Amino acid sequence: MTPAERLRARIREVPDFPRPGILFKDITPLLQDAAALQTAVDLLAEPFEGRAVDTVVGIESRGFILGAPLALALGAGFQPARKAGKLPRETLRESFELEYGNEQLEMHRDALEPGQRVLLCDDLIATGGTAAATSRLVQRIGAEIVGAGFLVELEFLDGRRALPEIEVHSVIRY
Amino acid sequence: MTPAERLRARIREVPDFPRPGILFKDITPLLQDAAALQTAVDLLAEPFEGRAVDTVVGIESRGFILGAPLALALGAGFQPARKAGKLPRETLRESFELEYGNEQLEMHRDALEPGQRVLLCDDLIATGGTAAATSRLVQRIGAEIVGAGFLVELEFLDGRRALPEIEVHSVIRY
Repeated sequence: MTPAERLRARIREVPDFPRPGILFKDITPLLQDAAALQTAVDLLAEPFEGRAVDTVVGIESRGFILGAPLALALGAGFQPARKAGKLPRETLRESFELEYGNEQLEMHRDALEPGQRVLLCDDLIATGGTAAATSRLVQRIGAEIVGAGFLVELEFLDGRRALPEIEVHSVIRY
Repeated sequence: MTPAERLRARIREVPDFPRPGILFKDITPLLQDAAALQTAVDLLAEPFEGRAVDTVVGIESRGFILGAPLALALGAGFQPARKAGKLPRETLRESFELEYGNEQLEMHRDALEPGQRVLLCDDLIATGGTAAATSRLVQRIGAEIVGAGFLVELEFLDGRRALPEIEVHSVIRY
């Protein structure tokens, strides 16, 4: 088994969560395994090593679990993209569509310095709406997007189409 | 300046957030600084090195940002304690009091193995209610608590009193 296959074996599929018809990818068994967690961070970092990433932006909230160690692995800082109302200072906000209704993400207006090189991180890319909203926030702040890293990619939902100008890497694909 | 004092200088105090009268400790400027983020994780890990921690339990959601790198620093796995309704499989749930009303935290019933050695982690300890609820979850699952690590401690709220049997370490104290 390749390292990525070993990680995949640690992801549990839970039917009908959070809604009927959705086969949820539960990464908690992978996180629970110290060696698998280290491998996941190593494989997320690999494509972006030597790429002068200044800041990893992790998307609330499972993106925090992988994004923060990814930042340390790349010698970068970390900033959260948060659900609306959680950040205390002046924010920028972007909306994106979910199956039922809209959701919003925010970042502090001064979360990044203009020109900083940013890597987006989340546990999973499905339709790409969340990551696309985050990329708009980063660009409105004036930073540059180096790429986006995801532990899991649901290829049948074609989320890369929502990130047309962005270099996307994923570790485990369905 | 000591390393902890350098970290403290990176925390921004925001008045009247999330409610009037609360002086919010905003750690995002610290996270944004790669060296400060690394120092924060090093100082959180220090008291627990060589203590055979199996799993770090990070509390949603800022506890994820520090808890996951802390797990890697200690060679441990990571598990999230999440707000109600976010985890897909069978959970245990504990309530705790906030200033206005109740909040609930959940962990998967099989998040830990009985006898595993667990370190709790959150960004901040105030009254200790959140950490105490998490410690009850860990103990109901049958795991052992080695200690609890917080980046920031609001000493005037005496949160340690809510964790009487637990070894508590904090990096920055107010």
